Amino acid sequence: MRRVSRPALQLWFEFASTYSYPAVQRIEALADGPGVGVEWKPFLLGPVFKNQGWNDSPFNLYPAKGRYMWRDLERLCAKYGLPFRRPSVFPRSSLLAARVARTAAAEPWCGDFVRAVFHANFADDRDIASVETVTAIRRPGRALVEAAAAPETKARLRAATERAIALGIFGAPTAVVGDELFWGNDRLEDAVAWAVTAASRAGDRR
Amino acid sequence: MRRVSRPALQLWFEFASTYSYPAVQRIEALADGPGVGVEWKPFLLGPVFKNQGWNDSPFNLYPAKGRYMWRDLERLCAKYGLPFRRPSVFPRSSLLAARVARTAAAEPWCGDFVRAVFHANFADDRDIASVETVTAIRRPGRALVEAAAAPETKARLRAATERAIALGIFGAPTAVVGDELFWGNDRLEDAVAWAVTAASRAGDRR
Repeated sequence: MRRVSRPALQLWFEFASTYSYPAVQRIEALADGPGVGVEWKPFLLGPVFKNQGWNDSPFNLYPAKGRYMWRDLERLCAKYGLPFRRPSVFPRSSLLAARVARTAAAEPWCGDFVRAVFHANFADDRDIASVETVTAIRRPGRALVEAAAAPETKARLRAATERAIALGIFGAPTAVVGDELFWGNDRLEDAVAWAVTAASRAGDRR
Repeated sequence: MRRVSRPALQLWFEFASTYSYPAVQRIEALADGPGVGVEWKPFLLGPVFKNQGWNDSPFNLYPAKGRYMWRDLERLCAKYGLPFRRPSVFPRSSLLAARVARTAAAEPWCGDFVRAVFHANFADDRDIASVETVTAIRRPGRALVEAAAAPETKARLRAATERAIALGIFGAPTAVVGDELFWGNDRLEDAVAWAVTAASRAGDRR
């Protein structure tokens, strides 16, 4: 009997990352049709960039690239029908939101939380580093912040970032399907297609 | 009477640039359908990268990014049905080919020449810096090399590179439509669509 594995991809993202915004908003709509499961993988770009010798976002370090990115993101959001307002602070500290998302990775509300934090940063220009912003998105606030501050949560997020580097991830968003990396919002469609093909091949081998 | 401007885009490219390979091979097929004219704009990335503090390709300077790019390019070429062999030397010196393309910018054979040089570099792993490779693509070789070596050709290519920097170009390929930049092979479809819309708007204003 031919059994087909459920296709799946991991979406590695960083809450401060500009192109992660359209990617997290789009991924489930793209993945749901062909039945591809999405695993949310929050991590921190700071240590990844530090490994490349950068102490800031490359969009700040390389101004021509940064100017282009803001215009490109504006055009892309218009194309996708996503609201967009350029954040007055960039990059924003994503540590708190990433820790909360890390504790929520297996929860049914994880996707909604992730999307709402990105919306706060890139559509409402709100400070996602603040407890008020994060707890307004998901209640009860005290439990959320306590879970985020727990040593095991901090350790898990650090481990996720180390895992990202070990996988060869150098930017966000990156979709991972088996051994294949797909970097950037513009590779999401290819990543979903790859997940479907890979699952079908795995089914054929059984 | 409503008159529609002929839509057009400039394709700024560099012969050593990996993602310029699928872009130059694809652009005319994408542009011809909607009647968008393509202007070939060879330039040199070396001075652009030097402005950003790099003395080599970022794909060599940042190994994780480089490893990803080679695999991504291989996958993209498979998707587009383009032959691909990883060049044994990267980046190759593109000065001679860029000068020839600069002299040919208005010639009907320019597109074929550009595509053949990219094919030599990224499908046949041939040295595009050599006179033999370039003159095998386009004859008569002596006239070609003499025109490429003329002081006015050298000055024109330098001016094109300065113009690219002034336009805000920081990488290749970049499609330019009016004031809009579209960086990367993955933005070609958007650039063509923008050219069509821009020409239609210009027609409406008349």
